[in-house]
Amino acid sequence: MFSNLSMGALGLKADLPTSIELAVRHGFGGVDPDLGYLNDLGDLGAVTEFGSSVAERGLRWGIAGLPIGVTDPGPQFAEQLAALPAKLAVLQAAGVTSVGTWIRPMHDDLPYRRNWTLHVGRLSLIAELLADSGIRLGLEYIGPKTFWSTERFPFVHSLGEALELIVEVGAPNIGLILDSYHWYTAGEDADDLAGLSDADIVSADINDARDDRERDEQQDLDRRLPASTGVIDLGGFMAALRDAAYDGPVKVEPFMKSLADQPLDDVLADVSSRISAAIG
Amino acid sequence: MFSNLSMGALGLKADLPTSIELAVRHGFGGVDPDLGYLNDLGDLGAVTEFGSSVAERGLRWGIAGLPIGVTDPGPQFAEQLAALPAKLAVLQAAGVTSVGTWIRPMHDDLPYRRNWTLHVGRLSLIAELLADSGIRLGLEYIGPKTFWSTERFPFVHSLGEALELIVEVGAPNIGLILDSYHWYTAGEDADDLAGLSDADIVSADINDARDDRERDEQQDLDRRLPASTGVIDLGGFMAALRDAAYDGPVKVEPFMKSLADQPLDDVLADVSSRISAAIG
Amino acid sequence: MFSNLSMGALGLKADLPTSIELAVRHGFGGVDPDLGYLNDLGDLGAVTEFGSSVAERGLRWGIAGLPIGVTDPGPQFAEQLAALPAKLAVLQAAGVTSVGTWIRPMHDDLPYRRNWTLHVGRLSLIAELLADSGIRLGLEYIGPKTFWSTERFPFVHSLGEALELIVEVGAPNIGLILDSYHWYTAGEDADDLAGLSDADIVSADINDARDDRERDEQQDLDRRLPASTGVIDLGGFMAALRDAAYDGPVKVEPFMKSLADQPLDDVLADVSSRISAAIG
Amino acid sequence: MFSNLSMGALGLKADLPTSIELAVRHGFGGVDPDLGYLNDLGDLGAVTEFGSSVAERGLRWGIAGLPIGVTDPGPQFAEQLAALPAKLAVLQAAGVTSVGTWIRPMHDDLPYRRNWTLHVGRLSLIAELLADSGIRLGLEYIGPKTFWSTERFPFVHSLGEALELIVEVGAPNIGLILDSYHWYTAGEDADDLAGLSDADIVSADINDARDDRERDEQQDLDRRLPASTGVIDLGGFMAALRDAAYDGPVKVEPFMKSLADQPLDDVLADVSSRISAAIG
Repeated sequence: MFSNLSMGALGLKADLPTSIELAVRHGFGGVDPDLGYLNDLGDLGAVTEFGSSVAERGLRWGIAGLPIGVTDPGPQFAEQLAALPAKLAVLQAAGVTSVGTWIRPMHDDLPYRRNWTLHVGRLSLIAELLADSGIRLGLEYIGPKTFWSTERFPFVHSLGEALELIVEVGAPNIGLILDSYHWYTAGEDADDLAGLSDADIVSADINDARDDRERDEQQDLDRRLPASTGVIDLGGFMAALRDAAYDGPVKVEPFMKSLADQPLDDVLADVSSRISAAIG
Repeated sequence: MFSNLSMGALGLKADLPTSIELAVRHGFGGVDPDLGYLNDLGDLGAVTEFGSSVAERGLRWGIAGLPIGVTDPGPQFAEQLAALPAKLAVLQAAGVTSVGTWIRPMHDDLPYRRNWTLHVGRLSLIAELLADSGIRLGLEYIGPKTFWSTERFPFVHSLGEALELIVEVGAPNIGLILDSYHWYTAGEDADDLAGLSDADIVSADINDARDDRERDEQQDLDRRLPASTGVIDLGGFMAALRDAAYDGPVKVEPFMKSLADQPLDDVLADVSSRISAAIG
Repeated sequence: MFSNLSMGALGLKADLPTSIELAVRHGFGGVDPDLGYLNDLGDLGAVTEFGSSVAERGLRWGIAGLPIGVTDPGPQFAEQLAALPAKLAVLQAAGVTSVGTWIRPMHDDLPYRRNWTLHVGRLSLIAELLADSGIRLGLEYIGPKTFWSTERFPFVHSLGEALELIVEVGAPNIGLILDSYHWYTAGEDADDLAGLSDADIVSADINDARDDRERDEQQDLDRRLPASTGVIDLGGFMAALRDAAYDGPVKVEPFMKSLADQPLDDVLADVSSRISAAIG
Repeated sequence: MFSNLSMGALGLKADLPTSIELAVRHGFGGVDPDLGYLNDLGDLGAVTEFGSSVAERGLRWGIAGLPIGVTDPGPQFAEQLAALPAKLAVLQAAGVTSVGTWIRPMHDDLPYRRNWTLHVGRLSLIAELLADSGIRLGLEYIGPKTFWSTERFPFVHSLGEALELIVEVGAPNIGLILDSYHWYTAGEDADDLAGLSDADIVSADINDARDDRERDEQQDLDRRLPASTGVIDLGGFMAALRDAAYDGPVKVEPFMKSLADQPLDDVLADVSSRISAAIG
């Protein structure tokens, strides 16, 4: 495991070079790539060079966002699919090895099994294109009941379901994005993580929850920094990652607007230290 | 269609002979069978005779409860399954042609697809035994969000899902129990009922909803008599049943405890008249 | 129903204008469109005009080939998918309302359920793009055992399976291409066709089988003209189409190389007369 | 792994005490249980005592036949299901920990997915009852094409499909019965066995194939003793079992009628020696 700086996940803005500087300064082990920035470098040679320079700074790549909307209307999806290989070539040239997206945990029109069919079909196509570029796909399930219960048809919102979906797609380059916040809000515990291996996990997020709300009242976009409230069993979560011999990025995504109001270096020093402490 | 008296669905108590008297007195077209009573008649000959006497009174049978718990633990399910043929023989001797059950719309441990698998497997077995006795199975989906959202994993809670489940089981003797209350709370309208035929519908319930609650706040066990509050589009519901050329029982299941405190004949006269008016 | 001239299905070559002349001369009710020819007309206005001229000749369009390979490798599929809307715009401008493809009934690597997942996912995307152009998709199942048993994993090769696939995709604009040859070689009879409606059928092919081979020995690419050997119950097949109130094209696809050696007008007069006799 | 004597699998007849004597005499590590014999011992106490005596002879139990027909008609299945717990109690008392059955690889009426649904539903029920008795279920896929291609709808006939079925049932006490003969006839190699663990395998059979037939011409009921013809890569098969840390029974099931005509001790000495050599 390595601590991974994702400025976006912290609600902070910085271009990729700045993020890299900040990651180095605060002792992160990696940084999230930014496809837009890489793409603007002009040609794949420049991208490769940029990727090398990041490695030379001692940083690994975190995880890029999947550049296609899994549940977009068919025509848009088809267009994005056709545009995907060129984008993946950029990521591949930079040395990026994983992209990720979240699974929208409800739908107003598609019942569970129809939504499942849509996801399996589209994720299969996406995974096949990703495999051609040597890139893995991480899927994040979303746990808060205040989110999945807001439309007519709840969808995947637990670890077990996410694993089922991955098995059904059947592509060797798909795995989980595990977030302690979703694990907690989904009502899961360490037993649910037992048996996972590094191959099953593409990325990990660690966050804590507010201590003035019950589990089923927690909001998806109102979390806390890891090991701050102690609501979530961070120790159990990290122990499971270690048992899985997980070797990928660990980041923080607290959705706390207040972070943007604090001195940047204070925030990053705190975040870096919290992740390092969790990794142990 | 015919109006069907189900004392149990009205929260009232009466043995089967009394129910039959009441059904005749108040002009119902049918009455729900009671397996326990029929079984106590002693032998199938007596049951057949009893069934004939009901027909001679001008009544049709409504729908019996399915005498096995679809989601019971495996060993209990296996026992009930073995005991099922004898019970079906009693129903068949009485001339009963349909049984029904509801689909529990959530589960605390089984995610949607695992629960689906359990239902498909068990309903297939049940349907095969029912077919041997010439009996159809009606499945009722449950609409209120205040019910399906109470455990970790919501399950079938809409017409479309119930139809998918019936298709997946693939038995010709399974159909729907349609209840205007579930149709309303599931957020459905007349379009959702379009295309149904008599073969798709085993039984129908008509109920209204409280007018001081939003749709998503309605409670499964707190309804109103049909055409009382006007919250539910009873006209649209009945028109769809007519379009389907539906020929089965129509009953009322309001879960209003107050009915038990009113004069019995007043209640039944009111209910009979409401159903007759709806059937038109 | 109307008789449809498909030169390609007869193993004969002709450009679209010639096919149209031949269709008119021999009393066919329709002719298969040719996307390549239409596309070469230059702009959608010319295509629309061409389509109108065909209608003015008293012909309806048959069915075009689906211009994307359902089971092609992912990257090619993605490219074709992106190119699909422009092709559909041409077909739509010409007034074509249906395209068709066959379901490859086996696979050497993908077991049934994995192949099913691939088909459902891709056909869903295709159907959504087609719907945007008001075009239906016809799917043809392939019956001969000498074909579906040639690789490790047999796939859809019967009417029931094709219907299941269509239900699973869940798109209102997908239906069947029914071929009497596949119906016969799949071991089906008139009962299997019962209950179909015009909405379920996109196109129909009528062919007979060799009378010196058992059903399981028949070859996919060695058939006979309809009502020539009498092996196939053409009367039962056509009666089922009439019961379904089928209103679409009927063509012949005998895979008889000898047709190319006979005088063209003799062949077409014979084919036209056989289809007309079948339609009755 | 341990060598396991199954007289039945060798086409030989012997009651259980005789089989035990023969297993000891010829150095087998285990012997298949016989439910009928155990049941006739009269009470569970006697069965427990008998089980202990077998252990005292230094033998482990192989695998019993699953005492219910997975694809039997519904009513029979229901009866057998109800009778299952009592039979499992006998096996459990004897110390038997696994039962097995094979998956019929085709069906004349049920297409693949309908047959899948039937298997998943019934195996789920069976597995739940088995789990209550601490017994595992082994499922054997059947490889020969001359068998799976004999009816209209081929079904599970490969390792990958069998694993998918086990995942779909989702019961922790179901695993594979691996037979080198099915592995070979299914066109599989050592790669297909990679990644399996002891938990995935309930029992193993080793057999060779005739050397005068192509793979797709091999007959299910005409095999050869392991390491006799060399057609099957027994070394690769056993290496995979060792990689999986497989700890269960290994037996021989050659379907060679000629064995019954040879001196019994010669046959058993040969078989024991072949299994021991394979285990290494």
